[in-house]
Amino acid sequence: MPTPRHPAPPWDVERWFNTDVPLSLQTLRGKVIVLEAFQMLCPGCVSHGLPQILRVRDAFPADRVAVIGLHTVFEHHHAMTPDALAAFLHEYRIDFPVAVDRHDGRSPIPATMHAYGLRGTPSLVVIDAHGDIRHHAFGQIGDLQLGARIGTLLAEDDAAPARRCRDDACEIDTTTSLGAIGQQQRAAVALKA
Amino acid sequence: MPTPRHPAPPWDVERWFNTDVPLSLQTLRGKVIVLEAFQMLCPGCVSHGLPQILRVRDAFPADRVAVIGLHTVFEHHHAMTPDALAAFLHEYRIDFPVAVDRHDGRSPIPATMHAYGLRGTPSLVVIDAHGDIRHHAFGQIGDLQLGARIGTLLAEDDAAPARRCRDDACEIDTTTSLGAIGQQQRAAVALKA
Amino acid sequence: MPTPRHPAPPWDVERWFNTDVPLSLQTLRGKVIVLEAFQMLCPGCVSHGLPQILRVRDAFPADRVAVIGLHTVFEHHHAMTPDALAAFLHEYRIDFPVAVDRHDGRSPIPATMHAYGLRGTPSLVVIDAHGDIRHHAFGQIGDLQLGARIGTLLAEDDAAPARRCRDDACEIDTTTSLGAIGQQQRAAVALKA
Amino acid sequence: MPTPRHPAPPWDVERWFNTDVPLSLQTLRGKVIVLEAFQMLCPGCVSHGLPQILRVRDAFPADRVAVIGLHTVFEHHHAMTPDALAAFLHEYRIDFPVAVDRHDGRSPIPATMHAYGLRGTPSLVVIDAHGDIRHHAFGQIGDLQLGARIGTLLAEDDAAPARRCRDDACEIDTTTSLGAIGQQQRAAVALKA
Repeated sequence: MPTPRHPAPPWDVERWFNTDVPLSLQTLRGKVIVLEAFQMLCPGCVSHGLPQILRVRDAFPADRVAVIGLHTVFEHHHAMTPDALAAFLHEYRIDFPVAVDRHDGRSPIPATMHAYGLRGTPSLVVIDAHGDIRHHAFGQIGDLQLGARIGTLLAEDDAAPARRCRDDACEIDTTTSLGAIGQQQRAAVALKA
Repeated sequence: MPTPRHPAPPWDVERWFNTDVPLSLQTLRGKVIVLEAFQMLCPGCVSHGLPQILRVRDAFPADRVAVIGLHTVFEHHHAMTPDALAAFLHEYRIDFPVAVDRHDGRSPIPATMHAYGLRGTPSLVVIDAHGDIRHHAFGQIGDLQLGARIGTLLAEDDAAPARRCRDDACEIDTTTSLGAIGQQQRAAVALKA
Repeated sequence: MPTPRHPAPPWDVERWFNTDVPLSLQTLRGKVIVLEAFQMLCPGCVSHGLPQILRVRDAFPADRVAVIGLHTVFEHHHAMTPDALAAFLHEYRIDFPVAVDRHDGRSPIPATMHAYGLRGTPSLVVIDAHGDIRHHAFGQIGDLQLGARIGTLLAEDDAAPARRCRDDACEIDTTTSLGAIGQQQRAAVALKA
Repeated sequence: MPTPRHPAPPWDVERWFNTDVPLSLQTLRGKVIVLEAFQMLCPGCVSHGLPQILRVRDAFPADRVAVIGLHTVFEHHHAMTPDALAAFLHEYRIDFPVAVDRHDGRSPIPATMHAYGLRGTPSLVVIDAHGDIRHHAFGQIGDLQLGARIGTLLAEDDAAPARRCRDDACEIDTTTSLGAIGQQQRAAVALKA
């Protein structure tokens, strides 16, 4: 079922792991973003979601596809604190950037999880190079399907006129002109190995 | 590593299974073709290649992606006859079209395997909607990578001007005009579910 | 490598989960005990050790084989508190008895882990019906090997003269006499299904 | 469910693979025999039964446990000839002794399969050191259960008075006397590693 395209809400983050600078949709503009919403004590996240996103990280070049974890704690808050998450990330050798979704102290649902309307964990959100949500899944999705969605977004981006993005704006780059051959070459390098 | 694009050689087939009419690159023109070259007594084909291509068959709509098996016997010819293959396909419940690659009685290597330059089995060949080989792999390839390649070809095809294909020729369909929105919609339906 | 037989040290437990009454070597005397020492944030415990011990629980009758978890926290103490363990057991649906190994506030190594000389987690300790340690493994052990060790202890116990055990003493039951046939029958029922 | 103990029928074999001399219940007397009845084109045999029996071969010492394959072709006879089996064993690197069950040319069911009353493939038959069938399973059995049955038979054998077996007779060896310690030592070496 096609997911309607709409702008990804901003991330409301309490703390980042595995990155020196805070990340945002703006700083990642121009890349496909694969966002994994998880909880450290969620069995499906540990057995399926996180291993899958590590495979995504290994399969695609970092300058085209950004892999981001979002720790969306909506239950057992006392057991899944940021400090406990630090131990979890260390033990599971998760070294891609992970954001801790912010709690306002009133709702058990953290802010970004609420803004994205996520039903639970694991949830996968695929955001295109323009910052639009293009896929949204709760539970498990197969590697073939996920690979196809990422490949589609990469190819779309390759077929589009070249852009220069800065801050939250992108303009068409009139200094380059990409013909059919150029597009193929870019598509060809969109996969490692 | 990008595989150079070149026209897929025709298939030289001794016998077809699971199809009422013989298939060819021409009859499948307009679809992405995922061709799995296998041998029924090849362990990597049984444990990896064939299960993967069954997943491909289930993940993509049949009117966009055609899944074809090619039985390329280059060893143990006495044990992997077409009749033995029939028993194998029955037991393993393989119900997509499978072609038996033709032997000329001189070389142990069958004709299509030779024409495609395949190194062994399993080998995977991905052919785009225009009949060009776009990917070529011996051994195992992950689902994410294969999904991304198929997704890329589907999106490319969606971005291209509409065509009408008949026999071995396709012409641009000037009666339709596809803008960015149309392309997205087509991409969105390229995945089942 | 044969593990020397010696009496299992008593368990020094801070808190029990999934049992109404505290358990001990004495209360379980007469059963084979399979003890899994684990930490909730230990990846090998989550992916291998705990699923294996759940299979043990399902494969053997509860009146012959007792399955016990021992939470031996020796690192990340702040993240693996008994309360966090409660959430973990709930999420992973672990419903066999689990003991929290006691800390004395000085050493990071808890008391029972120290007494048993465990190197880390997961560790598996198999204790026979007399309370003697018969197998001791750090890391992963295959199901065939573990099954064989349990089967060996069950058969040994079947071949031994019948005993009556109470508290920490067992005496030979001179009211019964078990011949070869009786032994076989007992061995035959030592496996469910 | 306990399997009644009864003498294993002799094997009626057309041809042996992976052994220089024909094997029989008599030549293997004194060992636990794990017999895997399979067909080379049976998916459950390829994915479960044969990998399991290879693990059995690796887990137990060859002088205590004998692993034997029995090719019981009851369907697709033209596709599973002994010559085809030779290619299969080569490709799947199966190097333990495999017997081809004999056909009398009348029934599709081969002789040994009929004598053992096997329902299909894969079937597993466990025979004790005295030549009695002790376990009999059609389909899949877990490694824990299989390991326990083998461990039980090894321990039983260790607890029994020492015997000298020659040809098809075994006599009690009155030159040795095994006490509790001796039994434990023998049990301890019944598992590799």
